[in-house]
Amino acid sequence: MDLELLSELSVPNHTKILLLVIDGLGGVPNESGRSELEQADIQHLDRLAQESMCGLTVPVAPGVTPGSGPGHLALFGYDPLRYTVGRGVLEALGIDFDLQPQDLAARGNFCTVDNAGRITDRRAGRIATDRTVPLCEMLRTIGLPGVQVFVEPVRDHRFLLVLRGEGLSDRLTETDPQREGVTPLPVRATAPEAEPTAKLLNEFVSQAAKLLASHEPANMLTLRGLAKRPPMPSMPEACKLRAAAIAAYPMYRGLAKLVGMTVLPTGATFADELQTLKEHWQEFDFFFIHFKKADAAGEDGDFQAKMRALEEVDGSIDDLHALQPEVMMVAGDHSTPAVVAGHSWHPVPFLLHARKFVRLDDTEGFNERACAHGTLGTFPAKEALSLAMAHAGRLTKFGA
Amino acid sequence: MDLELLSELSVPNHTKILLLVIDGLGGVPNESGRSELEQADIQHLDRLAQESMCGLTVPVAPGVTPGSGPGHLALFGYDPLRYTVGRGVLEALGIDFDLQPQDLAARGNFCTVDNAGRITDRRAGRIATDRTVPLCEMLRTIGLPGVQVFVEPVRDHRFLLVLRGEGLSDRLTETDPQREGVTPLPVRATAPEAEPTAKLLNEFVSQAAKLLASHEPANMLTLRGLAKRPPMPSMPEACKLRAAAIAAYPMYRGLAKLVGMTVLPTGATFADELQTLKEHWQEFDFFFIHFKKADAAGEDGDFQAKMRALEEVDGSIDDLHALQPEVMMVAGDHSTPAVVAGHSWHPVPFLLHARKFVRLDDTEGFNERACAHGTLGTFPAKEALSLAMAHAGRLTKFGA
Repeated sequence: MDLELLSELSVPNHTKILLLVIDGLGGVPNESGRSELEQADIQHLDRLAQESMCGLTVPVAPGVTPGSGPGHLALFGYDPLRYTVGRGVLEALGIDFDLQPQDLAARGNFCTVDNAGRITDRRAGRIATDRTVPLCEMLRTIGLPGVQVFVEPVRDHRFLLVLRGEGLSDRLTETDPQREGVTPLPVRATAPEAEPTAKLLNEFVSQAAKLLASHEPANMLTLRGLAKRPPMPSMPEACKLRAAAIAAYPMYRGLAKLVGMTVLPTGATFADELQTLKEHWQEFDFFFIHFKKADAAGEDGDFQAKMRALEEVDGSIDDLHALQPEVMMVAGDHSTPAVVAGHSWHPVPFLLHARKFVRLDDTEGFNERACAHGTLGTFPAKEALSLAMAHAGRLTKFGA
Repeated sequence: MDLELLSELSVPNHTKILLLVIDGLGGVPNESGRSELEQADIQHLDRLAQESMCGLTVPVAPGVTPGSGPGHLALFGYDPLRYTVGRGVLEALGIDFDLQPQDLAARGNFCTVDNAGRITDRRAGRIATDRTVPLCEMLRTIGLPGVQVFVEPVRDHRFLLVLRGEGLSDRLTETDPQREGVTPLPVRATAPEAEPTAKLLNEFVSQAAKLLASHEPANMLTLRGLAKRPPMPSMPEACKLRAAAIAAYPMYRGLAKLVGMTVLPTGATFADELQTLKEHWQEFDFFFIHFKKADAAGEDGDFQAKMRALEEVDGSIDDLHALQPEVMMVAGDHSTPAVVAGHSWHPVPFLLHARKFVRLDDTEGFNERACAHGTLGTFPAKEALSLAMAHAGRLTKFGA
């Protein structure tokens, strides 16, 4: 169901819902014929699956490989095809930048241009972050009429540009021509109301070009993913619950903040996250806790490392279970099979453990093959929250 | 598919489709680990399942607990999120009131107010129906300009109010403040065209208050669920067949009438319904026959009674099968697990028996666990009718 309907049907309760997101959870068999989950020693997850309802989630649509944004938004109850978050906004979230609703954010890339202004290296030789920092400080000196300018280093040749002011629009084209040998493009408005914003951005680029001229290889920049925060209903309001997010990585904190969750300060490791969860257990009704390593190992194409990451998170399952939430979900935002060495479109193992009203299936373990036969079937990830809400006694009847 | 597409693709034929709705069919295991269907002796349904295609239906959406209205509309081919039937209309259907398309219906509650007009009991001490009857007769004497007024007792403190006239709108708020200690609210128009209707209703309430003043505890009333019949395509027209409904309970007769079925007069028991079915077998192409007891037992939280109800309907399966419809479906409008003691969101066992073109699965019995592995999978209940139409040779090809 969509969040509007959820908002209509949700009722307050004292029950707790815990959502563990294992980033990049799903896998694909390697030459052995078995996937990371099938080969890893994940006895706690396997046992939990036997006491749960299992299935596979489709993050966006069959065949669609999701980025981190849509993958998480779906698990937070949003239709990821309806609520799209621009790259500029994700970049801001990724560095914990406190993006305001009126802000316009862009992902910036330093690049190299020749004497004729043609791009010779779209990534400025991937200069190190410590070279990007002073360049960003320099660009902050650029003044634009009526708006505040923020320029923040991200990593390597990447930075974040934010304009803050009234009436900014994101109906704009990008300046990166996506190839070398040509000059960067001007920003163009794709709607009349964006003309003033396009003018401001082109003025920024023009002043930046002068400031950067002597800083080869970073003697120019491009702007991509010009975007404002999309208007989104608040997940905690729609669900009538207090929701907290615990994530060591800023991107996931940012996504949680975007949907209205309270982001709890935590440390850099999953053990820190668990500690934070325990400390705040009494204060919230819904907890999103994020485990990153499985995705990182999958991205690296490291089958063994992904198995070890899964075994690490498996070691925390009993701790999570011991908190006795009325509903506990173990989910992934998408698959990151080591054999793909990247995100993929494959449906993602999912389990929902509830104290009451459960139809157990015969699932013997927590993996792709077993979950495919689970009682929940293969279903859109955006429906997971509704199921959890139902099992937590937080939804009333639809229609008389 | 939706009814518009069904209407495009449907072709006449001489085949018959029988839909048996076992109200509240789906269950959840009790402490024994097995559900009502798994524990009941339903050998005829089990055998039929072995010769059928099985699956689980999702009445509205994952996690959504449907009322009787949406649960049935889905099985009649309607998207229950698109075609919503207001409470006032359902109340009218529930007492066999002949609601016209221009009528405005409301559910009325007698209530008790103190000297300052504040509600002290929203249900007027749940006065018995025989006390409500003369109060309704009294309220019928209220005259309103340009409209006819109907006031019909329902049960206990509940009654039905219907205004009949031109130009009535249901874009209105309710008068029940949903709590005690405050006065009833006025009816307010939520759209300009509803202003005159709001005025009529407030006039009705004002006159009613004077008439009821001396009839404590029923010295006031509230109005809820103000609604007109929603515009709906006709199911028999869309499907190009003659459709009959056989149901002992008025609510289900009303829902069938709403979608354009012919409602056959029948008796109070399921045996009466079966007799009616046999008598009219030659006259129609589609039959909806309704079995109520499973839902009632589930609502009561009586696991044993629900098993007995399922065994009772099981005893009629051979009789139904003997009529040799080209397609026979056994479905539920929703689950009513005894352990929930109410409607629930759990998917509902479903079987489709057809004479031709069947892909049998290995389903060994008719229950939640077995049907989860059926060849039809877990699918939206609104698609059941299309499947039946296809197997009845009543749908032509889509596209060239």
